[in-house]
Amino acid sequence: MTKIRAVICGASGYTGSELLRILKHVPEVEITAVTSEQSAGKEVTELFPHLYTYKGVRFVPLDKNALLDKGDIFFLALPHSASQEAVEFFHSRGKKVIDLSADYRLRNLQLYERWYKTNHRFSDTLKHAVYGLPELYREEIKDASLVANPGCYPTTAILALLPALRQGIINTEHIVIDSKSGVSGAGRKSEVAYSFCEIETGFKAYGVAAHRHTPEIEQELSCIAGSAVNVTFTPHLLPVARGMLSTVYAPLKHTIKSGGLGELHSIYGSAYKDEPFVDVLPMGKYPDIRNVRGTNLCQLGIAISENGTLIVISAIDNLVKGASGQAVQNMNIMFGLDETTGLDLLPVVP
Amino acid sequence: MTKIRAVICGASGYTGSELLRILKHVPEVEITAVTSEQSAGKEVTELFPHLYTYKGVRFVPLDKNALLDKGDIFFLALPHSASQEAVEFFHSRGKKVIDLSADYRLRNLQLYERWYKTNHRFSDTLKHAVYGLPELYREEIKDASLVANPGCYPTTAILALLPALRQGIINTEHIVIDSKSGVSGAGRKSEVAYSFCEIETGFKAYGVAAHRHTPEIEQELSCIAGSAVNVTFTPHLLPVARGMLSTVYAPLKHTIKSGGLGELHSIYGSAYKDEPFVDVLPMGKYPDIRNVRGTNLCQLGIAISENGTLIVISAIDNLVKGASGQAVQNMNIMFGLDETTGLDLLPVVP
Amino acid sequence: MTKIRAVICGASGYTGSELLRILKHVPEVEITAVTSEQSAGKEVTELFPHLYTYKGVRFVPLDKNALLDKGDIFFLALPHSASQEAVEFFHSRGKKVIDLSADYRLRNLQLYERWYKTNHRFSDTLKHAVYGLPELYREEIKDASLVANPGCYPTTAILALLPALRQGIINTEHIVIDSKSGVSGAGRKSEVAYSFCEIETGFKAYGVAAHRHTPEIEQELSCIAGSAVNVTFTPHLLPVARGMLSTVYAPLKHTIKSGGLGELHSIYGSAYKDEPFVDVLPMGKYPDIRNVRGTNLCQLGIAISENGTLIVISAIDNLVKGASGQAVQNMNIMFGLDETTGLDLLPVVP
Amino acid sequence: MTKIRAVICGASGYTGSELLRILKHVPEVEITAVTSEQSAGKEVTELFPHLYTYKGVRFVPLDKNALLDKGDIFFLALPHSASQEAVEFFHSRGKKVIDLSADYRLRNLQLYERWYKTNHRFSDTLKHAVYGLPELYREEIKDASLVANPGCYPTTAILALLPALRQGIINTEHIVIDSKSGVSGAGRKSEVAYSFCEIETGFKAYGVAAHRHTPEIEQELSCIAGSAVNVTFTPHLLPVARGMLSTVYAPLKHTIKSGGLGELHSIYGSAYKDEPFVDVLPMGKYPDIRNVRGTNLCQLGIAISENGTLIVISAIDNLVKGASGQAVQNMNIMFGLDETTGLDLLPVVP
Repeated sequence: MTKIRAVICGASGYTGSELLRILKHVPEVEITAVTSEQSAGKEVTELFPHLYTYKGVRFVPLDKNALLDKGDIFFLALPHSASQEAVEFFHSRGKKVIDLSADYRLRNLQLYERWYKTNHRFSDTLKHAVYGLPELYREEIKDASLVANPGCYPTTAILALLPALRQGIINTEHIVIDSKSGVSGAGRKSEVAYSFCEIETGFKAYGVAAHRHTPEIEQELSCIAGSAVNVTFTPHLLPVARGMLSTVYAPLKHTIKSGGLGELHSIYGSAYKDEPFVDVLPMGKYPDIRNVRGTNLCQLGIAISENGTLIVISAIDNLVKGASGQAVQNMNIMFGLDETTGLDLLPVVP
Repeated sequence: MTKIRAVICGASGYTGSELLRILKHVPEVEITAVTSEQSAGKEVTELFPHLYTYKGVRFVPLDKNALLDKGDIFFLALPHSASQEAVEFFHSRGKKVIDLSADYRLRNLQLYERWYKTNHRFSDTLKHAVYGLPELYREEIKDASLVANPGCYPTTAILALLPALRQGIINTEHIVIDSKSGVSGAGRKSEVAYSFCEIETGFKAYGVAAHRHTPEIEQELSCIAGSAVNVTFTPHLLPVARGMLSTVYAPLKHTIKSGGLGELHSIYGSAYKDEPFVDVLPMGKYPDIRNVRGTNLCQLGIAISENGTLIVISAIDNLVKGASGQAVQNMNIMFGLDETTGLDLLPVVP
Repeated sequence: MTKIRAVICGASGYTGSELLRILKHVPEVEITAVTSEQSAGKEVTELFPHLYTYKGVRFVPLDKNALLDKGDIFFLALPHSASQEAVEFFHSRGKKVIDLSADYRLRNLQLYERWYKTNHRFSDTLKHAVYGLPELYREEIKDASLVANPGCYPTTAILALLPALRQGIINTEHIVIDSKSGVSGAGRKSEVAYSFCEIETGFKAYGVAAHRHTPEIEQELSCIAGSAVNVTFTPHLLPVARGMLSTVYAPLKHTIKSGGLGELHSIYGSAYKDEPFVDVLPMGKYPDIRNVRGTNLCQLGIAISENGTLIVISAIDNLVKGASGQAVQNMNIMFGLDETTGLDLLPVVP
Repeated sequence: MTKIRAVICGASGYTGSELLRILKHVPEVEITAVTSEQSAGKEVTELFPHLYTYKGVRFVPLDKNALLDKGDIFFLALPHSASQEAVEFFHSRGKKVIDLSADYRLRNLQLYERWYKTNHRFSDTLKHAVYGLPELYREEIKDASLVANPGCYPTTAILALLPALRQGIINTEHIVIDSKSGVSGAGRKSEVAYSFCEIETGFKAYGVAAHRHTPEIEQELSCIAGSAVNVTFTPHLLPVARGMLSTVYAPLKHTIKSGGLGELHSIYGSAYKDEPFVDVLPMGKYPDIRNVRGTNLCQLGIAISENGTLIVISAIDNLVKGASGQAVQNMNIMFGLDETTGLDLLPVVP
C-alpha cells in the first residue's frame, strides 16, 4: 500500500515532537520532512533524544516550494500569524493541511485581529477551514481540505459543556471556566519565567480575564447554544510539564437540580457513547491528569453543587488531545483510517 | 520577663511541626510540652530532622491532668472530634486554648453534626469560641479564652470576598470558589493515595460539592453579608507539598463593571490597609503560592471578566496562614504581643 | 494462532501494573488472571485508572490450584520470600515461570539467607533458575523453565561493567556504584516515609553499605570477571516516581588511560552492537532518565577521569528494564517471539 | 550603633536574592545598593516578589566610582571573569570584599586560566585572597580584606574529607566525589536546557570529568593532605531547585576497617565539635537535602563499605552554605559579629 506522506512544519517545538512520537505508531504514514528554521541541519535526536527511532533524520528549513511535492498532508506547528501564509500556500496548491496554530480557528476576522493583534491576510482560505473538534464536526472533517486544530483550553471547555448546552439545561449567563495547565502549554521556551527554578513548587493564574482562547471558546459555545455565550475564563499554570484540567461551572435551569445527577450522567453518557476519546467517568469519580498523560483521551467527571450549579471537570493531555493527538485524529478522519490509529497507547503511570 | 508557657497537643503532624518551627522565633514563648500518642517517647527530631534546635525534646502522651499546670496557652492540633473534649478540659480550667481542629468553628451544632458525622458534646464551651480570623474578629480575639482557628480553604475564601461583601457590590447567588491545595493539607498520612508515586505529575479535584469546609465558608460569608450565602466550592489537589490558591468568582452588581477595576482595587486596598498579613497586589499582578511559602501572608489579585464577574485570586501557605501561623497570630493578639512576632520571615525562593 | 496464556500473580503493585500496560501491546499474549490478596474482587481500574482497557477485569486471590490450568507462563510479582513457594508450585507442575522477586536470583543459599533473613526451602528448584539478564544469558533463557528476573540496581551496574570486565581493563578492587532511583522502586506503599510530603524537594542516600542488591551485583560481576569482585554500592532516592541512574567507577589498568576514550567506546560499542535494548551513547553524551522513561532501554555514557578512573553512567526505567519490561523481554525469548515485541514504545517527553 | 553598610553587586541572580533574604535578618547590616545591569531601574520585587520587605528598592547599574563610598563591605555576585576587575577596584581602595565568583579561589594562575579559559589580570590582588571556608581558614578570614567565597561542590567535598585527610586514614589515590545538585546551581537562566519541561522527572550527569570545580577541590584537599591529591568528580543535576548532596568515597588505610565505624565517628565528631554549621549525624543516619534547605548547615553521614571504603555523605543548600549563607558567615567573622547572625533560621519542611 502506498503510504500517506506527511510533512511537519515547525517540528522543533513540543507539538512537533509529539507528532513525531505519535506518528511513529501509525504504520500508514511516512514522514518525509520535518522543518525548523533555528535547528535546520541538526538531527531530530539532538533536540529530542527520546525520539531515538528518528536517528539520522534532520530538520530542514521551511522551503515551501521544495516541500510541496513531498507531502499529502501538511501539519503546521508554526507560531500564530506565521502560519497564515504557509497554510494558504499548501492549501491553495491542493494539499490537505492541519494547522495547529490559532490562525484559522476564529471565523470572525475582526475577533482574530483584535485578540492576536495582527491582520489576517487570507480570508478566502479561512472560509475553507473546519474547526477540528471531531466530537462537533466529524462529518465536515471527513471532507475538509483545511482543518484548524483546536486550542487545548477550548477542547476541555467545549467537551465539558457540549451535552448540557445541546440539552438546554444550563443558564449561559454565569459560565465560569477555571483551567489549570501544565507548563508545556507555553511551548519550548528559553525564558526565565519558564525555567525550572521559577516554576517548581509554584502555582498561579495568568492571562486573567485576557487569554486568547476566550473568543475561541465563546465562538463554539455560542454555535452550540444557538445564541451568544460569554464566559469567565481563568487559566492557571501547574508545576507539571503536561496535562490540563478545567473545572467548568454553570447554573442549572430549574428542570434539573441536585437530585438530578443521574439524569445528567445519562445526558452526558448518551452524548459521548460512540466517541472513542471522550470518557464520562462513573458518578462520584473525577479525572486526574495523570491518567490521560500521553493519551488522546478526554475524561469528564460531573457533579451538582448544593446551590444548583453544574460542575464538569474535564481533563486532557494538552499536547495530545489538546494538540498533536487531536491533529492525528483529524488526519485519520480525513484519510479514512480507523480514527484511533496511533492513539491507543496506555499512559505510563506512575 | 516571665515567658508564656505553651503546650502543643498533637505535635506529630504537620501543623504541630509548623508550630514548633514558628514558635522558635518567638522569644516570649517557651514550649513546655509536645504530645503525641503514637510517637510518645520519641525525640521530635526523629520525626522532624529539620527541627534540629529541638534536639533532646521528646513527645509525651496527652495526659491532660499532668499537662494542665505546664501551660498558659494550649495549642490543640488534634484530629476533628478528638479535640472536643481536650478543648473543654483546658478551657474549663481557666487556660487559654487555640484549637486547630474544626470542632469549635461552626456555631450551628446541627451543621457540625451533619458534616462531621459525630455529636458535639460541649455546646456550652462552644459559646465561648471565637472564630480566629483576625481580619474579621480581632477585637473578640483579644479577650478570647478559646479561639477556633480557621480552616485553610475558608481563610482564602473569606479574605477574598470580605471587602466585596461588606460593600454589597456582588450578587451572592452564584459564588464559585475554585480552590487548589498542596498535599500537606491532608496531614502527615500513611495512605497509598498520598504516596509520592500517586501524586507526582498529577492534578485532580476531590470532595467535589461535598467538602467539610463548605459550611464554615458559608457561615462566615453569611455573617458578613447579613443574609444566607451559599457557595459552589471545589477543592483540588496540587502536586506540591505546600500552598493554597483559591480563585473566587462572583457576579458584580451593575454598579461596578469592567471599567471599575480601579474602584475595586481601592475598595480592597482600603479594607486591608492596616492588615499586616493581607497584601493586595497591584493591578495586573496575581499571586503565586511560591511567594508566600513558609509565611503568614495572604496575597490577593483582583480582576473583572468581560461579562462582569469579579475574580479574586487568593494565595496562602496552607500550613501557616491556613493553620499554624494564624494560630500564632491569634496567640500574639491574645497575649498582647506585636501581632507579627515570629511571623516576619521571608520565603525561601527558589 | 493460539495465544500464550499469561497469569500475573501479585498484580496490585507497580511491577504488576506495568506488566499489564506492556502486555497490552503484545498481541500474542492473553492475560487470563491477575491476582491480589488485598484487592481480590476489585476491578483493576479501581487501583489503576490509567489501565482503562482492562475495564471489567478483576483481581482474584492467589489460589494456586485454580490458576494452574489457566496459564502457559506465570509472572510472579510477589514480595520476597512469599514468592519461593509459588514459584516451586507452578514450576514443578511444568509451567514456565518468570519470578520478579529476589528469591531465585542468588545461587548461593547462604548468601540469600543472610541478606534476606529467611530460609530458602527450595534449593532443587533454585538449580533450574536462570538469571534473566538477556545480555548475559540469552541462550540459557531460551530454554529456561524458570527465570529469576534481575533487580533494577544490578541491571544498571552489570550492564555498565560487563564489557570492561570481559576485556579485563579495570582493576576490580575499588569499584564504586553510586545509584539513584525513583521512588517507585520501593513499591506501592502506604508508609509516611514514601508520602509525597516526605519526598518532594528531597534527596538522600539509604541502605548505605547495606543494600540487598549488593550480593546480586557481586555474584554476576564475579562470574564475568572470573574471580571474586566486591563493590561499594550506595543507593539514593530521587524525588521522581520512575527512573534509575547509576554512576559506576573503576580504576583503569595502565593499558587504557585518558587518551583511550575512543578505545573504550569501541569496546562498549562492539559488546552491545546487537543488543536491542542497550544503547551506547556517542562520546560526550550522557543519559537522562527522562529519555528512557516507560521504555526497556538501558542507555550508557562513558568517560575517563584525569586520574585514570573509568566512569560509566547507566540509565534505565526501574519498572521496565529494571523489572516488568525485562520480564516481557525474557518471555519473548522463552517463547521464540521477536525480542522487542511490546517493547518498542517511545517515551512520553516532556 | 553604626550599621555595617553593604553593597551587593550582581544582585539579580539567585545568589544575589539569597544575600538579600539572609541579610534581612542581620540587624547590624544596612544594604545601601544592589546592582544589576540588565535590571537597572527595576524594583527588586519585580524580579523577586517574595522579597516583599524590599518594596521600593531598585537595582542600579554597577558604577564603581559611585558605589565606592556607599559600602563597608562589597558582596560581588558577578559572573566569573567579570568579577576580576570589580574585586580589584574595591579592594585596592580599602574596602572589604567577598567575591562569590571563582575568580580569586585558585591560587595557581595557570590552573585558573586553563579551566576558566581567560587571563587573570590581577595576580597581586589574588595574593590577598583568603579561601572563605571558615572550617579551614577561620583565623585568616578574621583579618582578611578579600575573601574568595568557595564553590558549592568544593564546600561539600572538602567538609566531607577534611577530618579523614587530617588524620591520614585514607588512601588519596582513588577518591571519588559523586555530587548531585539542584538546578539553581546553574543560576537564573533563560535557556531551554534549564526550562521546567526539560528538567521535570529527569536526572542526569553533566560536566563529566570536566567540571571547573575539580581544581578548586584538588587545591584544598592537597593543602590539607600535604601532597597532591587528584579526584574523580562527577556532578549530576537533580530535578529540584535547591540542595546539593555529595557522596564521597575513599579507600581506608588498613588501620581502620568496617569494625572501625565508631572510631570514624569520633574523628569526625571531634573535628567539627565547635563548628556551628557542620552537623555530624549519629551512626546510621544520613542527610537529606530537605533538612538543610534554606539554612547554612552542612550535614554529614558516615559509613564504611564491606570492602573497606569510607563513604561520607555531605548535604548543603547550594545557595546558602554553598554560596550566600557562607558569604554572610564570612562577613560575620570579618566584622566580629556572632558567626551565626542571620543564619539561625529553621528550614521550611515539608
